[in-house]
Amino acid sequence: MTDIEARAINAIRFLSVDAIQKANSGHPGLPMGAAPMAYVLWSEFLKHNPRNPRWPDRDRFVLSGGHGSMLLYSLLHLTGYDHMTMEQLQLFRQYGSITPGHPESHLTPGVESTTGPLGQGISNSVGMAIAERFLANFFNREGYDIIDHRTWVLASDGDMMEGVTSEAASLAGHLKLGKLNVLYDDNKISLAASTEVSFTEDVKKRFESYGWQVLEVKDGDNDIDGIRKALKAAEQQTARPTLIDIHTTIGFGSPNKSGTSGIHGAPLGPDEVKVTKNNLGWPLEPEFYIPDDAASHYKNALERGGRIEREWKSLFERYREKYPDMARQWDFMWAGSLPAGWENSLPFFSPSDGAIATRKVSGAVINAAAKVIPNLIGGSADLAPSTNTYMKEIAEQQSSNPGGRNIRFGVREHAMGAAVNGMAYHGGVIPFGGTFLTFSDYMRGSVRISALASLHTIWVYTHDSVWLGEDGPTHQSVEHIAALRAIPNLIVIRPADANETVEAWKFALSHKEGPVALIFSRQGLPVIDRSTYAHANNLTKGAYVLSDPPAGGPDILLIATGSEVSLALEAKELIEKKGIKPRVVSMPSWELFEMQPQSYRDEVIPPALKARVVIEAGVRQGWHQYAGEKGRFITQDRFGASAPMKVLKEQFGFTPERVVEEAERAVKGA
Amino acid sequence: MTDIEARAINAIRFLSVDAIQKANSGHPGLPMGAAPMAYVLWSEFLKHNPRNPRWPDRDRFVLSGGHGSMLLYSLLHLTGYDHMTMEQLQLFRQYGSITPGHPESHLTPGVESTTGPLGQGISNSVGMAIAERFLANFFNREGYDIIDHRTWVLASDGDMMEGVTSEAASLAGHLKLGKLNVLYDDNKISLAASTEVSFTEDVKKRFESYGWQVLEVKDGDNDIDGIRKALKAAEQQTARPTLIDIHTTIGFGSPNKSGTSGIHGAPLGPDEVKVTKNNLGWPLEPEFYIPDDAASHYKNALERGGRIEREWKSLFERYREKYPDMARQWDFMWAGSLPAGWENSLPFFSPSDGAIATRKVSGAVINAAAKVIPNLIGGSADLAPSTNTYMKEIAEQQSSNPGGRNIRFGVREHAMGAAVNGMAYHGGVIPFGGTFLTFSDYMRGSVRISALASLHTIWVYTHDSVWLGEDGPTHQSVEHIAALRAIPNLIVIRPADANETVEAWKFALSHKEGPVALIFSRQGLPVIDRSTYAHANNLTKGAYVLSDPPAGGPDILLIATGSEVSLALEAKELIEKKGIKPRVVSMPSWELFEMQPQSYRDEVIPPALKARVVIEAGVRQGWHQYAGEKGRFITQDRFGASAPMKVLKEQFGFTPERVVEEAERAVKGA
Repeated sequence: MTDIEARAINAIRFLSVDAIQKANSGHPGLPMGAAPMAYVLWSEFLKHNPRNPRWPDRDRFVLSGGHGSMLLYSLLHLTGYDHMTMEQLQLFRQYGSITPGHPESHLTPGVESTTGPLGQGISNSVGMAIAERFLANFFNREGYDIIDHRTWVLASDGDMMEGVTSEAASLAGHLKLGKLNVLYDDNKISLAASTEVSFTEDVKKRFESYGWQVLEVKDGDNDIDGIRKALKAAEQQTARPTLIDIHTTIGFGSPNKSGTSGIHGAPLGPDEVKVTKNNLGWPLEPEFYIPDDAASHYKNALERGGRIEREWKSLFERYREKYPDMARQWDFMWAGSLPAGWENSLPFFSPSDGAIATRKVSGAVINAAAKVIPNLIGGSADLAPSTNTYMKEIAEQQSSNPGGRNIRFGVREHAMGAAVNGMAYHGGVIPFGGTFLTFSDYMRGSVRISALASLHTIWVYTHDSVWLGEDGPTHQSVEHIAALRAIPNLIVIRPADANETVEAWKFALSHKEGPVALIFSRQGLPVIDRSTYAHANNLTKGAYVLSDPPAGGPDILLIATGSEVSLALEAKELIEKKGIKPRVVSMPSWELFEMQPQSYRDEVIPPALKARVVIEAGVRQGWHQYAGEKGRFITQDRFGASAPMKVLKEQFGFTPERVVEEAERAVKGA
Repeated sequence: MTDIEARAINAIRFLSVDAIQKANSGHPGLPMGAAPMAYVLWSEFLKHNPRNPRWPDRDRFVLSGGHGSMLLYSLLHLTGYDHMTMEQLQLFRQYGSITPGHPESHLTPGVESTTGPLGQGISNSVGMAIAERFLANFFNREGYDIIDHRTWVLASDGDMMEGVTSEAASLAGHLKLGKLNVLYDDNKISLAASTEVSFTEDVKKRFESYGWQVLEVKDGDNDIDGIRKALKAAEQQTARPTLIDIHTTIGFGSPNKSGTSGIHGAPLGPDEVKVTKNNLGWPLEPEFYIPDDAASHYKNALERGGRIEREWKSLFERYREKYPDMARQWDFMWAGSLPAGWENSLPFFSPSDGAIATRKVSGAVINAAAKVIPNLIGGSADLAPSTNTYMKEIAEQQSSNPGGRNIRFGVREHAMGAAVNGMAYHGGVIPFGGTFLTFSDYMRGSVRISALASLHTIWVYTHDSVWLGEDGPTHQSVEHIAALRAIPNLIVIRPADANETVEAWKFALSHKEGPVALIFSRQGLPVIDRSTYAHANNLTKGAYVLSDPPAGGPDILLIATGSEVSLALEAKELIEKKGIKPRVVSMPSWELFEMQPQSYRDEVIPPALKARVVIEAGVRQGWHQYAGEKGRFITQDRFGASAPMKVLKEQFGFTPERVVEEAERAVKGA
């Protein structure tokens, strides 16, 4: 290690140490231990231009151990990212800064993914590498490799223990993602203790079992050249992903705390900061010190980044001349836009089509959309035949077929979630992932982050209630719609029929601002007659009056979603026979409804009309908001049972007769 | 394979085929392919007594691929479990039967765990094996091995793909659970397709990397002797867990569908049933045919089971004579009882103790309880120092220390959930698992099943809101309490202070009927003065009047939970100064409140009193139920931010002043 290298590495360490000390909160252990590998990667390998953090062909760097955020912020500052000022470093973990406790991609330029919950980052990277490979195949022409970048991950022991990582790594090995390189900061310490107490597996062998190239650097604290060689070897191996097991010392440099869990997640304290600076030959003052030579050394990134982006731009301009259509496609896809008139390809359904499961309609929409939207990419967690998420006539993403858009995620819901997020982080594609609604539980860690990071991901959840029948309560969703609605910034849509399903997909594909969860039925649902009832494009308002009494009234509101809307319509006629005048409201999405002006909401659910019945085959949690104090509920508040759907409808009281009963009660009680 | 063996194996196949055909729904592929291994295991190895499915020292058999439920029901019927009548087989997947689509332990004697969601069963088994080892260490004396049984798992390709399985298998390898044996039904087919399209890792090598013994049976369809030898070798290896990779043909025997995904999850259809029966030399009629010799062959299990349980009983009677105290302890622990007066060991707190985080109080309770409850066992997912779940002065569960009760689950939340469930399924212990509330997302698959199966598990969730501060929104719970409340049969308790925390634990430890989620704060909370305010033991009612105006009123209800209760009390005094008379309601648990009679509920929340303010640092979803139409909310409906808690309280409006403001509005608006 040269002196300048040492200073450059220590600059990362002490920016991190000082920022954490100033905030009196944070995780110094990782930045101190992983600084050498980060230094080598960022100054010699990572293809990026600090002046343009959004350059599409940049390498992606994912700090999977997001608790080491100061490592990343230090690197962004040192290599010259404009927004990452010294002031921001000093505002670490303060309100309104771009230096939050864990990296947030929507907040901080240069942060590629929102990490902290362990396992997410490394699993995102699999999606990033898929997106890169797909786009390279799509756009590149001989002599014009306009997409050609790598995904680098810095992962911690904790990442390696998480199941989502295992799923994602197995998938990456299967797909032979040769441009995916993981630097494993192997320091044998986690938050609570040494990994000896809980984590003694052979990680290298495990990754070999997934089909990865596995390299090792025995002294990641000092052997800069060893790190360099390993990164080089990783770059050269393009036939499969690479894991580099780099042995480091957590909190390197701290005489009393390095190598212990005490330095994982707490500031060093003023005394230990002092002895650590002394120990590594660092001046005690000023804080946030960056030696001039280290500063200018890092700033090479600006020159290097500027140059490689310029070269790329010049290549791209020649590409644009030679392939003008492709270049237009490029602009278009990176903007997240959809081809003009794409909606025209979508089907329309009429009652004469008979009852159709909304999952099947969803499948038809996916297939129609896939033909006109060339960057729609996704799949399901081994449930394609059931979730209807397979795009027929479109190739399958495999190592032998990098242009494929059907992704076989395997029975790996959580990795699917993280990889779909990774594709969205990467950009250039519109990704989706599907499974049974009940198994949204398995991938909730990723769904949450899609909402936090405002990713344009589409979650397709089928078999949406107890009506899936015979598979029984282990597979029957009861609480899942409520649980998804609870996530801020996630739009949940449960369409009532085929045409609402088309509208829901239309919305999801064009809603670039955040994730959408689409909730579909297993069973056939009648197509609502739109010549009699309101148009399905009202779906984007979240709730709308589907049917009103021909004259007078309404005396009562029936508010329903999904499969229960046709039940409400069925009951409507019986209720009318009782001399009661019902309004039927289809309410596919609370979130969209809440975005409407109060006046519209009061039109649909008139505050003065207290007689209301809510019908949804799920827990009633949250429905009081729309039912009001006098409202009544036909909901499914306990776990289901294994039986044919028709039997369950009787048993659980989802019959027209029961709706009539509750409607009469509601009218009396209001 | 002898003729009788073939008939015994085919009996499993065709009971399954016929039941699935009759139900016109189900998964024949697994029972047909795995019948040989199941036959060998159940007739020669599994230690069980069909006459007493609850005999404590029985081997545990877990069908991790729960979709193959007919395999298990067939075995239960054939080996003579009373409840599993022929009629029940014929009622497969019908309402009210004990033969639901996927096995449910609370429904069906002989079913050890509720499976279907893949990965759960095999991960449960790790907890079962831990419980066995712990109890053996606890009870056994020289010459008296009253606990000495194995845990057998039948796992599918899908199980192997799930991340929770990876986590659990890594933990099992670390703990060297030598009595855990997994039979891997390696048929290379999953629901959607051949595993070739998504799952090409080297599973054997992967399990070796975890430290497992790995065996292989190349022809699991025919090589009965090979299966027998492998099971023998598994039994003999007690120093580490064993995986037996048994190659099989999914849907074995079906001429047109075996070896394809078409037979995974759909009935064969009448024609294919016919040719399959012909192919395997099975009579077409009657359906549900069991050859006499096969029937009596299986019934050996009754004789064998009766004998081994009798031997055990006689051993146990001698044990009871020699170790009467231990035998009493045994009765006690298997009944799930707590020692008389155990609550006396719990601490009581007064305001002079200063502000204490409820997670710390929880730690004190766990430590006090651990001293008097010898079978309290659990731990956290690498967060012991933060979740305060470590039992000091109590040993750690490690291979070198099988008596330990502190379990280091590692950064494996989902496996923790499943293993804790496994310990509860096993019985004899009271298990708990802890992590940050936000990471309840990672283990939701298991939490759900704990509720469905009514397990006595205790989930400890700390750092319960945005008030964890600097770690930021990736770690700050906002929607999680709502998401947990949505799960039927799960009791969620968010205590307001130290003494409510003690009461919450008291409830959780004695609530044998189902799981309890305890939600604790990171930050210190003032101890509420119980000499002035209502006693904390009101917590078991879910909500109670903490404070009422001294005379007249109340004019307004302040309803709060957890950390927001002290905010409500603080605001109360300011509100009183405005001439408004507030009632403060502490509402730690919706579920417990809903169990109270209407009269009590109306006492606490008088229907006529419409001026209400709900205060909870989480999404308001569901609170309208208690707030009513005129209620106001101080809730956290968007993601948090990285900043010190005090700043966040200002930014997010959780201040006494804001409460006063909303209270005034509520009074005006009511």
